[in-house]
Amino acid sequence: MEKLFLLGFLGAVIALAFAMLQRHRVLSVSEGNERMKKIAEAIRAGANAYLKQQYTTVFKVFAVVFVLLLVIAFGSGGKMLSKVTPFAFLTGGIFSMLAGFIGMKIATSANARTAQAASESLNRGLRVAFSSGSVMGFSVVGLGMLDITMWFFILRYGLGMTEPTQIGSIMVMNGMGASFMALFARVGGGIYTKAADVGADLVGKVEAGIPEDDPRNPATIADNVGDNVGDVAGMGADLYESYVGSILATFSLGAIAGFGFRGMLLPLLLGVCGIICSILGSFLVRTKENASQEALLKSLRTGTYTAAILAAVLAAPLTYFTIGSWGVYISILSGLLGGCVIGYFTEYYTSDTYKPTQRLAAASETGSATIIIAGLSLGLRSTMISILIVAVAVLVSFFAAGGMQSFNCGLYGIGIAGVGMLSTLGITLATDAYGPVADNAGGIAQMADLPEEVRERTDALDSLGNTTAATGKGFAIGSASLTALALLVSYVDIVQSKTEEVLDLSLTNPLMLVGLFIGALLTFLFSSLTMDAVQKAAQSIVMEVRRQFREIAGILDYQADPEYARCVALCTKGALHEMIAPALIAIIVPLITGLLLGPVGVVGMLGGVSVSGFALAVFMSNAGGAWDNAKKYIESGHHGGKGSEQHKAAVVGDTVGDPLKDTAGPSLNILIKLCSTVSIVFSGLILYFNLVNLL
Amino acid sequence: MEKLFLLGFLGAVIALAFAMLQRHRVLSVSEGNERMKKIAEAIRAGANAYLKQQYTTVFKVFAVVFVLLLVIAFGSGGKMLSKVTPFAFLTGGIFSMLAGFIGMKIATSANARTAQAASESLNRGLRVAFSSGSVMGFSVVGLGMLDITMWFFILRYGLGMTEPTQIGSIMVMNGMGASFMALFARVGGGIYTKAADVGADLVGKVEAGIPEDDPRNPATIADNVGDNVGDVAGMGADLYESYVGSILATFSLGAIAGFGFRGMLLPLLLGVCGIICSILGSFLVRTKENASQEALLKSLRTGTYTAAILAAVLAAPLTYFTIGSWGVYISILSGLLGGCVIGYFTEYYTSDTYKPTQRLAAASETGSATIIIAGLSLGLRSTMISILIVAVAVLVSFFAAGGMQSFNCGLYGIGIAGVGMLSTLGITLATDAYGPVADNAGGIAQMADLPEEVRERTDALDSLGNTTAATGKGFAIGSASLTALALLVSYVDIVQSKTEEVLDLSLTNPLMLVGLFIGALLTFLFSSLTMDAVQKAAQSIVMEVRRQFREIAGILDYQADPEYARCVALCTKGALHEMIAPALIAIIVPLITGLLLGPVGVVGMLGGVSVSGFALAVFMSNAGGAWDNAKKYIESGHHGGKGSEQHKAAVVGDTVGDPLKDTAGPSLNILIKLCSTVSIVFSGLILYFNLVNLL
Repeated sequence: MEKLFLLGFLGAVIALAFAMLQRHRVLSVSEGNERMKKIAEAIRAGANAYLKQQYTTVFKVFAVVFVLLLVIAFGSGGKMLSKVTPFAFLTGGIFSMLAGFIGMKIATSANARTAQAASESLNRGLRVAFSSGSVMGFSVVGLGMLDITMWFFILRYGLGMTEPTQIGSIMVMNGMGASFMALFARVGGGIYTKAADVGADLVGKVEAGIPEDDPRNPATIADNVGDNVGDVAGMGADLYESYVGSILATFSLGAIAGFGFRGMLLPLLLGVCGIICSILGSFLVRTKENASQEALLKSLRTGTYTAAILAAVLAAPLTYFTIGSWGVYISILSGLLGGCVIGYFTEYYTSDTYKPTQRLAAASETGSATIIIAGLSLGLRSTMISILIVAVAVLVSFFAAGGMQSFNCGLYGIGIAGVGMLSTLGITLATDAYGPVADNAGGIAQMADLPEEVRERTDALDSLGNTTAATGKGFAIGSASLTALALLVSYVDIVQSKTEEVLDLSLTNPLMLVGLFIGALLTFLFSSLTMDAVQKAAQSIVMEVRRQFREIAGILDYQADPEYARCVALCTKGALHEMIAPALIAIIVPLITGLLLGPVGVVGMLGGVSVSGFALAVFMSNAGGAWDNAKKYIESGHHGGKGSEQHKAAVVGDTVGDPLKDTAGPSLNILIKLCSTVSIVFSGLILYFNLVNLL
Repeated sequence: MEKLFLLGFLGAVIALAFAMLQRHRVLSVSEGNERMKKIAEAIRAGANAYLKQQYTTVFKVFAVVFVLLLVIAFGSGGKMLSKVTPFAFLTGGIFSMLAGFIGMKIATSANARTAQAASESLNRGLRVAFSSGSVMGFSVVGLGMLDITMWFFILRYGLGMTEPTQIGSIMVMNGMGASFMALFARVGGGIYTKAADVGADLVGKVEAGIPEDDPRNPATIADNVGDNVGDVAGMGADLYESYVGSILATFSLGAIAGFGFRGMLLPLLLGVCGIICSILGSFLVRTKENASQEALLKSLRTGTYTAAILAAVLAAPLTYFTIGSWGVYISILSGLLGGCVIGYFTEYYTSDTYKPTQRLAAASETGSATIIIAGLSLGLRSTMISILIVAVAVLVSFFAAGGMQSFNCGLYGIGIAGVGMLSTLGITLATDAYGPVADNAGGIAQMADLPEEVRERTDALDSLGNTTAATGKGFAIGSASLTALALLVSYVDIVQSKTEEVLDLSLTNPLMLVGLFIGALLTFLFSSLTMDAVQKAAQSIVMEVRRQFREIAGILDYQADPEYARCVALCTKGALHEMIAPALIAIIVPLITGLLLGPVGVVGMLGGVSVSGFALAVFMSNAGGAWDNAKKYIESGHHGGKGSEQHKAAVVGDTVGDPLKDTAGPSLNILIKLCSTVSIVFSGLILYFNLVNLL
């Protein structure tokens, strides 16, 4: 049976090989004329410089945590923490970093190439951008599969462990490194991209009145770098973490439910199967020349839906072969379907082809205050559907897989539903990661003064990217909530296995209630810190751009070049400086909660973080997405069109939404899971040292 | 022992007599010249008309719920619901309504009188406004004490019940009527006041460029009516509900903890003692002529702090006499102190004498988008302190009163902490309710063209009102969270007493987790609905004011009078129409949750509502308060002062904050408790009919 885990390596090899193939495909396209090459090189250099410094900073923090883990693990002789965990923490972090780095590398190579290909035809542009997205999509799942399978074999054969529960409880801690890295990447990248964006817009668009991506804007290169370090590298690390986290949480639940290694084999095989289905689906992503926006969207949808349907069909024999339970199969289906429905409703609330965003645009008629209120209200309301879908998915997967009678099997159902939701991540991430590439291509087309029609084509690709990004965010957050619940259950089981005292996890226990409150506090505080960080970093860009316009004569008349590098350096400095505090509180608050309130308080905190983090993240993502598209809707000629008072009001809405949807919102996703894995890793320590023990 | 409950009547009589005395004092002052009388009469008429219609609408809803309760109670022969509850539902609603009505009556009589008194001296203005606030403050506590004592005697002697647990579990349901009425009053009043305010500001201030409270603005009377129906009548009903709810929840917990009638006597006596201390404290509220803002604040603080300290001292013998536990005394102190600390930090985050609001004002330098982001961030961050204080209060009161060993005594500690926090409500509410009166007085001074110095004095009183209002909100929300936890515990006990099956309330139970999510959903959806309601109602006022400026020639040149009554009627219509949906979901969601997920799901939902409702309410109140004061800070000459671009940005912030701080935020307070009492009232029904039973 355990030998079948070798299939994990096979899946990893297939995914990584396919990613290399796609990379080759991208690089074989010309990068265009000299000017395009020069711009692309500047973006590449900026992104590389940022990532290098980010990794240097993160390395230091990782080193400290690594030593701390070593001390706990070896100091307690493995009692409080497995001696394996410090090393798994490192590999998780490195693989997550690699996933983001590979994505960023290819994206910064593909942007000019996409612009060049789009100058030949829309279909070619789409193919190049999508191939670039595929490199990241398949690298993420390939690396994830590799990490998981590798550690399984190290534990099972290298260290000779034979107990599934032991392996499960150790492996679930491996997610911490990936989550921690992902949080840095998301928060740092998110601050960078939005600081540059807000800075460029506020001075360039609003004050100087020059268009977006105008080469005269000193922050324009930084803005394009931001797309790569935030939307690509950040997202890659983020989804690597989600993917690995959902599988590992299910490993642990499978062992608890008594499924033995079969319970671990199923999520692994679902992943391998998803990789193959995603590759098949990606062959279907192509379009005719001069295709409409709808046709473009249809081609992407055909790819992802085909992959999902194939995966749903293949999951049946896999489940039957491993677990032999049709109930668990229903759990998988509920996850897959739930993901698609959340994706649809995310689009419904944020796309200007539907009522909510159109009505939001109409609120611009009475000024910026009313469009802000309406957007906040839209975001708050939109949480309803996402929460209901997750609630239904939880209940269906729980009752189908076991229910109250076979409680632990039911919990396994919740975990496997999360894996089902992410099984075709290869292709959904490809459609998601292609967006920033198209966005960058548009910027290069504008800066290199390519013909109008090229910009129109890249705009069509970009606009589509906004929709797929919304869908992708829906998936990410839906799976995050399921995984968080799975991790919460794992935490309880791991703690309970280490102590003879039965924990009172009832909601009427004041420690539990206070924990819930602390969880909510953490998500609110975290959101505030990330938003503040964007604000501060953006402020410095605004000052710098104003300074350049003032001090460098002739920028606006094309007589002098702006100093792009200064803005790039400022964004880098700001993002690195501001990312530390939010990332650290995600580790410190769970630790302090544990030390003061003990394991019961920690469980409450995890519940509070999951619930309020999920609701806040959906609220922020959807409000931000809707403001963005309401602005685009007005720009396309409604409510007075570009330059009108209504448009100005909508720009305010969009600017407010930026840090919500691209920094705070997606980071909450990671926070939810990081809190869980941190709590699991330190559970041994907390059990021995906590204030409640003394009372 | 039970005879001592007669002291409740004594407390009620003292409070109501003192209220009447203060009323007499207010009415003995002259209402000023003819013009002032005319304006006051218009405001009075508008407020009366609104309340009349509101009560008519609410009456219909109450009739439906009353019949529903009758059917359940008598249909099941009292098994699913006590036959007393439908009638207690009515009295709770009526008393809550009365509390708001009395407050509104006196406020609309005191506004012109305050303006007139202020034209004589600042001290006289303060005395009249504060006396008016006292009428409401002491009516609220007097009526509350009357309702509670009355029902105790009906149950104990009228129906001859001898079991404390039986009386406790019936009386805790009496809160539902008050909560339901309070929700209508808060939501309806909140929509009214903010629709009028936003409407008046957007067209009057921003478009037509005329000052606030200018008689040429057609919405100005509606705006002043709004202060009365929202900030006075709404708040009165709200705090009546908080006061009664905290005492009744503690009654129930006292019985559960085995303290018998002594456990109920303590909160009752604390209330009576608080009334007497509040009266003593209110004698200290007076100031010198031409006192500074600080001196005014100091005089109010002297009154409230003296009352609190007196109550803290007197609580010691009371606790010793009734319960004989110094631990419970510490619980009471932790509540009293917690309330004061929350009040202080609410002021810290929202007053322009402290850094946070000053920094917020500075964010106006880069436009409205940045001040919005900074305000959202400030609000999110400010939740930390309030949550921590409540968390500490919960833990201290729980462990002091019993802890894990005497679990139920510990829970009683949490309940009594909430009572402690509200014990001196008479005076804190008086300082709170005096604000809108001063605000109205300023409006009348402006409209009646009184000398500049009168307006300056009323402005000083009004500005102080903003600070006391912030403190009052802190108290209200802190006590709401403690009461909600107490009600949650009561719910569990009541359900558990009716069934032999032991409920699995562990957080790892998926029904519990889904319940938590539903709870968060409810608070987000509710906030969205109330904000939308303000938006819609405000939109109609904007259209109407624009129409009047357009169609009635000569308004702006003082040649023609605007049609004030049209705006008043529109606000009334809008508020009544829009208040129904948010109020109903507060009843329907708990019911549906129970029918689908059973009692365990309900407990989860109550936890979710309490936690995310508390965090959202603090976020909204503080963000709104800070934007309001940041605007005032700029108006006082900072960052360019009145009329600058920075000021315009700050006005956008203030407008966004209005529905957050005066409609959605305070309504969440009530929602939290209404969900609990609704769940308790329908607990019998839910236990027999729910889907989970079938699985």
